[in-house]
Amino acid sequence: MGTADEDPIPRTIEWCGDRIRLIDQRRLPHELVLVDATTVDELCDYIKVLAVRGAPALGAAGAMGVALAHVTGVPVDTAAAQIVATRPTAVNLAWGVQRALDADDPAAEAERIADDDVVINRALGAAGAEVVAANANVLTHCNAGALACVGYGTALGVIRAAHEQGKRPHVWVDETRPLLQGARLTAWELDRLGIDCTLVIDSMATSLMSAGQVDVVVVGADRVAANGDTANKVGTHGVAVLAHHFGVPFYVAMPLSTVDPDTADGAAIVVEQRDADEVASVGGHAVAAPGVAVDNRAFDVTPAGLVAGWITEAGLFRDPAELLVARRSVTRSR
Amino acid sequence: MGTADEDPIPRTIEWCGDRIRLIDQRRLPHELVLVDATTVDELCDYIKVLAVRGAPALGAAGAMGVALAHVTGVPVDTAAAQIVATRPTAVNLAWGVQRALDADDPAAEAERIADDDVVINRALGAAGAEVVAANANVLTHCNAGALACVGYGTALGVIRAAHEQGKRPHVWVDETRPLLQGARLTAWELDRLGIDCTLVIDSMATSLMSAGQVDVVVVGADRVAANGDTANKVGTHGVAVLAHHFGVPFYVAMPLSTVDPDTADGAAIVVEQRDADEVASVGGHAVAAPGVAVDNRAFDVTPAGLVAGWITEAGLFRDPAELLVARRSVTRSR
Repeated sequence: MGTADEDPIPRTIEWCGDRIRLIDQRRLPHELVLVDATTVDELCDYIKVLAVRGAPALGAAGAMGVALAHVTGVPVDTAAAQIVATRPTAVNLAWGVQRALDADDPAAEAERIADDDVVINRALGAAGAEVVAANANVLTHCNAGALACVGYGTALGVIRAAHEQGKRPHVWVDETRPLLQGARLTAWELDRLGIDCTLVIDSMATSLMSAGQVDVVVVGADRVAANGDTANKVGTHGVAVLAHHFGVPFYVAMPLSTVDPDTADGAAIVVEQRDADEVASVGGHAVAAPGVAVDNRAFDVTPAGLVAGWITEAGLFRDPAELLVARRSVTRSR
Repeated sequence: MGTADEDPIPRTIEWCGDRIRLIDQRRLPHELVLVDATTVDELCDYIKVLAVRGAPALGAAGAMGVALAHVTGVPVDTAAAQIVATRPTAVNLAWGVQRALDADDPAAEAERIADDDVVINRALGAAGAEVVAANANVLTHCNAGALACVGYGTALGVIRAAHEQGKRPHVWVDETRPLLQGARLTAWELDRLGIDCTLVIDSMATSLMSAGQVDVVVVGADRVAANGDTANKVGTHGVAVLAHHFGVPFYVAMPLSTVDPDTADGAAIVVEQRDADEVASVGGHAVAAPGVAVDNRAFDVTPAGLVAGWITEAGLFRDPAELLVARRSVTRSR
């Protein structure tokens, strides 16, 4: 297992004293470009357009945004509200903002969150690798890799840990319409890591499972409610239903900070509606008739009953009640 | 109900005495362009690139291809084999070719198939409209509209008949990756017909069904096996599993000619594997990292047990054995 410095995927987001440096994920897989956010407004724009995305990465981004407000002399409470409002579904964004607000030194806290993220993901990867058998075919949806975090990844962290253990997994990468995070980001990461993968359209998961070509599903999460209902990228719920139908175990991998004790169940999770143009055009190229009505929900909520287990830095939980206890114990220890 | 001449969607394919005229569906929804196939090779190219597609339309195309071989002095058996080999899954292609081969006048037979197609689709639309309640939300996948046929449509024919009965259906249009027949063709047709619709990515079907926003699913078919297992555009099987899970009735609409008595069950259906580039790029714009492995199955097979009924010109069949009897009786009557 390499150190962070040797990682083939650079850190997604970093605090640089007076600015935030981040990978502009819109430009992947074509080019790996780092950009700087020097103001809270810039950061909010980068979050809205998904230049930086993924629940754990947004936790770090939120904390760094508070630090940025401090050093740029912007009222911190206003900045915090502005940052939290950019994306309503991922709980880590609000969590990171609050951690920095509560800290004496927001910049140091933001850096601690970023460093912790990589440590946490390596721990959850190690804890979750047991669900990936030797030579397993693993299906994942969206990108819950290093790019969705500060580093290492959650769902891809589990696969990566299995790969580092010599298990030689093969990954079915759902392309993940509309923004193709699977095709653009997950396939790129797995290629960099030397992990065998095959890209498929989202709706081919049924053919794969029906043919016995999927042994396990591992996905990330944007918010896990107190009862275990799990919000993640739109399409995840469908994969969970299919996995249930075909008897394939379906796991969610995420840091405990993604569990939201204040959200009772999935019905209380706000699902972000995004722009119609994300569906009606691809890469600036119009694919649908002009003016067609579009419904573009960015997330869906998988009922807890369809989840075989939640993989966290504190281990694998099959009972959402125990997951909630673990989440609360972390809060108390900080 | 308008006559064929008043149809807002022109016939997809027509025999013009010495050539075949067809809508180049690759250019929709941006422009409605008719092109001519003057040789069997040209026709085969148009079929392979999906300028003309959809099981019933391919039935007419196959018959017209045999007629074209006759008038251009190409050996008919060679041409027939060449045409059938272009697309392995849709049974109507081979069926249309055989009908023309068996006829004394292939051109007249091809025209008869084309005319019959519109009559058949109007009949199956009328027979199927009962499954669409007033103000129903109907979900469909891919394009089984006028463009998939010579005219009127199968799954969209059912919706169109319900609309003509004043039932005011609303249609959820799955975009249907990779080639976006839903976004490009189905949304365009429904707009022309004045039927309310909303475009969604394929993987949003789960959110819709979970929220009770889908009352019924109606799709087309490329081949129905003797036991009722149904091949259709990749993604259909997933919609059927979801419909089953959420208690939404799932119907297949197709002419009896799509039932293949010689295919015992789904396992015997050859599923076409198409080019990786259909997934790795959209509209010529690369979306995935270069060189990524892709699995691009064009169809999947929905087990008969997930189908609430097959809607045909001979009525709605809930028992695949009765469907097979109806198919065989048509064969005998010709």
